Amino acid sequence: MVTYDERMARPAKTDSGAKRNPGRTRERILSAALKEFAAKGFAGARVDVIARRANINKRMLYHYFGDKEKLFRSVLRQKVAERRAWGANLSSDPAERLPFWFKTACEDADWTRLLEWEALQGDGQKVIDEDERRAQAADWLERLRQRQARGELTADYDARHLALAMQSLTMYPMAFPQLTRFIMGRTINDPKFQRAHAAFLKKFAAAFSPMNARPVKINFAK
Amino acid sequence: MVTYDERMARPAKTDSGAKRNPGRTRERILSAALKEFAAKGFAGARVDVIARRANINKRMLYHYFGDKEKLFRSVLRQKVAERRAWGANLSSDPAERLPFWFKTACEDADWTRLLEWEALQGDGQKVIDEDERRAQAADWLERLRQRQARGELTADYDARHLALAMQSLTMYPMAFPQLTRFIMGRTINDPKFQRAHAAFLKKFAAAFSPMNARPVKINFAK
Repeated sequence: MVTYDERMARPAKTDSGAKRNPGRTRERILSAALKEFAAKGFAGARVDVIARRANINKRMLYHYFGDKEKLFRSVLRQKVAERRAWGANLSSDPAERLPFWFKTACEDADWTRLLEWEALQGDGQKVIDEDERRAQAADWLERLRQRQARGELTADYDARHLALAMQSLTMYPMAFPQLTRFIMGRTINDPKFQRAHAAFLKKFAAAFSPMNARPVKINFAK
Repeated sequence: MVTYDERMARPAKTDSGAKRNPGRTRERILSAALKEFAAKGFAGARVDVIARRANINKRMLYHYFGDKEKLFRSVLRQKVAERRAWGANLSSDPAERLPFWFKTACEDADWTRLLEWEALQGDGQKVIDEDERRAQAADWLERLRQRQARGELTADYDARHLALAMQSLTMYPMAFPQLTRFIMGRTINDPKFQRAHAAFLKKFAAAFSPMNARPVKINFAK
């Protein structure tokens, strides 16, 4: 049985240009760190494993990022910035956004796993970079409220509940691949499943549109 | 910092009647096992810790349940039977079922955590008790199809996608308490959050009703 960790433990490509290209070295460390945090969580991750995978010595890694917590924070911030850039190019229509974020989650298993480890290893108190991440959530909610005001998103619900529901619908299948498999009879990586569920979400997104928030009851007998 | 594991590590009440009441002993072992599997996952859980918490010796535990895998299977089956019994008493209306399963997930953190560990520790292949669990999912889908045929649930979508969406909406907040906190500004255990999100789901359940599956566009200008 090959574990997720073993499958992911591919060595980084050899690169002798660490000194010549610090930007690329940073990238390589962040990429190796994401894989290690996704495989073992913050508590279980080892900085020497990250350094080895990034083909850099540990002292140099500390020079770039400080300690393990600061490295974790850098991974979080890079991922959030990356995801925000992806989202900025999308239409504000939930019929486009829900399928997009669902497919993105399916292709970005490391991100979901990292968050899942954080959920399991946390103590219910603040997590790393809590304040910054709350501020990002507040920005997202503000954008949702603007869409509500422009009539692009149903205004019948508080934006926070809509946000939580949209995140639930797009992130859950990747977070629980075994439960998704029980229901769908296909693995999470099966392109047929991904296409079919994206198509479902595109249509189901009508539930978030202003036209469809309240049930329309037509009494034909009257 | 007190970890989830430490908070949960309360010793079981002393009970000298193991031989006199095997049913209660089984219950006590299953309860201790659920806590240990929820705290550390199948791979990290230790049978001697479970035995100690259940106040029974390890040899006796093996006598009752066989090995660690069989114990895990018994925990799964007990939880699934328990949940199925709860669900059987509910109306088939999603406006009742969604808030109920959401609140149940909030009160049953151990179950969500156990499944989350399984997602992280699995290798993408079969999990413990895969065939039985697939059969249970098939039974659930059959009940959903019957509700669709009776007009209690929208028939505009394949029951599998509806099932996955309903599970996503009810299970996700407990699975990611930190992300829920970023969005809601309240902890997952805050009764105000739970009441408000249950009320949201009750109303949002209209999206699963036959009346509301397709967007109704009314062109007033025409």
